[in-house]
Amino acid sequence: MGWAIELERTASPKKKPKVSELGFGKYFTDHMFIMNYDGGQGWHHPRIVPYQPISLDPAAKVFHYGQTVFEGLKAYRTAEGGIRLFRPSKNLQRLNLSNDRLSIPEIDEQLFLEALMSLVRVDSDWIPGEPETSLYIRPYVIATEPLLGVSPSQQYLFMIIMSPVGSYYAEGINPVSIHVESHYVRAVEGGVGTAKTAGNYAAGLKAQEGASAKGYTQVLWLDGVHRRYVEEVGSMNVFFKLGDKVVTPALNGSFLAGITRDSAIQLLRHWGIEVEERPIPIDELVEACRSGELKEAFGTGTAAVISPIGELSYKDEKLVIGGGETGPLSKRLYDTLTGIQYGREKDPFGWMVEL
Amino acid sequence: MGWAIELERTASPKKKPKVSELGFGKYFTDHMFIMNYDGGQGWHHPRIVPYQPISLDPAAKVFHYGQTVFEGLKAYRTAEGGIRLFRPSKNLQRLNLSNDRLSIPEIDEQLFLEALMSLVRVDSDWIPGEPETSLYIRPYVIATEPLLGVSPSQQYLFMIIMSPVGSYYAEGINPVSIHVESHYVRAVEGGVGTAKTAGNYAAGLKAQEGASAKGYTQVLWLDGVHRRYVEEVGSMNVFFKLGDKVVTPALNGSFLAGITRDSAIQLLRHWGIEVEERPIPIDELVEACRSGELKEAFGTGTAAVISPIGELSYKDEKLVIGGGETGPLSKRLYDTLTGIQYGREKDPFGWMVEL
Ligand SMILES: Cc1ncc(COP(=O)(O)O)c(C=O)c1O
Ligand SMILES: Cc1ncc(COP(=O)(O)O)c(C=O)c1O
Repeated sequence: MGWAIELERTASPKKKPKVSELGFGKYFTDHMFIMNYDGGQGWHHPRIVPYQPISLDPAAKVFHYGQTVFEGLKAYRTAEGGIRLFRPSKNLQRLNLSNDRLSIPEIDEQLFLEALMSLVRVDSDWIPGEPETSLYIRPYVIATEPLLGVSPSQQYLFMIIMSPVGSYYAEGINPVSIHVESHYVRAVEGGVGTAKTAGNYAAGLKAQEGASAKGYTQVLWLDGVHRRYVEEVGSMNVFFKLGDKVVTPALNGSFLAGITRDSAIQLLRHWGIEVEERPIPIDELVEACRSGELKEAFGTGTAAVISPIGELSYKDEKLVIGGGETGPLSKRLYDTLTGIQYGREKDPFGWMVEL
Repeated sequence: MGWAIELERTASPKKKPKVSELGFGKYFTDHMFIMNYDGGQGWHHPRIVPYQPISLDPAAKVFHYGQTVFEGLKAYRTAEGGIRLFRPSKNLQRLNLSNDRLSIPEIDEQLFLEALMSLVRVDSDWIPGEPETSLYIRPYVIATEPLLGVSPSQQYLFMIIMSPVGSYYAEGINPVSIHVESHYVRAVEGGVGTAKTAGNYAAGLKAQEGASAKGYTQVLWLDGVHRRYVEEVGSMNVFFKLGDKVVTPALNGSFLAGITRDSAIQLLRHWGIEVEERPIPIDELVEACRSGELKEAFGTGTAAVISPIGELSYKDEKLVIGGGETGPLSKRLYDTLTGIQYGREKDPFGWMVEL
């Protein structure tokens, strides 16, 4: 289509934070991407501008009715200084699936990709080069029409902001303790759990607070219908190694189809390891843990890549998994995925997109 | 406690729209209330300022994780020119219940009430005087901390904005046709359905669009677990007259405890009419409609007060209720509730708060 993306460079570049202070999503780069939508006119005026506050009417629908979607992906710097994205087309597609579920107008994928790449190029000196650091990229859409009726907005902003992030495992890859949530529910079939939309994350805060107060890092969510089947762990998909097989919840319409999940499944099968996608009752896991059949458990997501689970607490029972240590398969997946991302390993599936 | 609410008056009052153009939530008054929250400091700096855009960091949590709650109530002008609020303490309490569910710090109810009253006083010439018009008041909280980690915000804004609204029933109280939604789910027990929070409304947009496209005004939501029990109709609670009794879904932890619902139940019981709060299977209603036992159905909410339901479409069946006309009980409830609100009738429960 040939979209012309305007570029206004900042006159006052910010001082870059020290790598040791980066954390996650705390610092933002010098520029951001913005594009407007107005009923009748469609998406228009794509532009890269200095990172700046946005000014909205207090009646803007996003504040009241949460009509908003987002994505999350990373740009990596290779040892040779190259810049690469991990499967960005998956994020473009998923954003539009989320848009559809939230009654937000579709965004042209070609334009989205151009916007993403242009912005990363403009702020490429913000991509840290230290081991396991990266540039986290957050595309998102918010409904801005100032109208209190509950109906899809006639105005939106699509934005992309970027944040340099530190190594998730500054002290080496480390297993976490997880609380199995049996009171609160995050999402349910027929709801918006398959979309990356704000309300899902708001719905999880209270349970997460409770788990943190008891010393757990994250919550393992059970399904909202039977309160029995495992769904996600925090904002990650979840896998279990049972004997020689790996099992992960089948995409059932109530949780997010993670891109790391898909990549882990492909790698495991590529290695000749059997992967079952199916409903997983929590009681099966409890039994398998007691019998020693449950060898490893881990979460998958863009932020941590692979997050080994060393302990599950369910009702009054503490289940230690794999002696509380990072298992060999979790480690292999982590090393291979990050190896592919940083260009240390071959990319057998053609996942990386070079800038 | 003696909160000092600062007041900055607008230098350029807006032109007031014609009553015939008001609609709902389209026009806003000259002023708004704002108060800040910062971790450590608590809620502070309550102030009334000219209605104006708010400026937020693009990373503000509300845009990404939907940590936000709101309320809705109305100020009415009586024939004598008095100004009255309907059960405002219920809204104060409910906002804090929502805050608790969304991990947002509690707001002092006394301050909230003072803020509400002061703002209504400052903009009292915005309360229209025509029959069945009112001033809609929207208190809300948004999470503003610019941080992409999924955790409760350390910064919030509490705001109140107000919109003069036209008569909901410009052409007289009119029954609506409702689509019973059997695919999409709005909320589920253990989720956030009992809170007035943005994500619940975002979750309903898609089904609402589908129903509108088929010519229905609203969606009747079924529960997310069994897909069988009636929960709410659009953004209203729902009642059915079965023979001489009235039934309404029991507060089960998955939908909002409406203030109009509570008021309707009190009035009905006051009139000696039996009201059952219990789970209501949709198939019971279908049967009752076929047998003629289902005499009336109506929604209750602040916006419409009472909204009679003339037709339900469930799967492939169209169920006409009460000949598609507004039933006598719906009419009596509407007349009595609005009568109390506008001061045309006695207020036996002391619901109205005079300014
Ligand atoms: C709720 C939820 N589940 C799972 C994931 C994992 O998805 P991905 O691997 O695409 O990052 C995410 C995002 O990080 C998420 O927010
Ligand atoms: C989801 C939902 N249910 C029910 C109601 C009715 O509540 P109330 O009578 O307090 O307005 C509302 C608000 O209007 C609502 O948003």
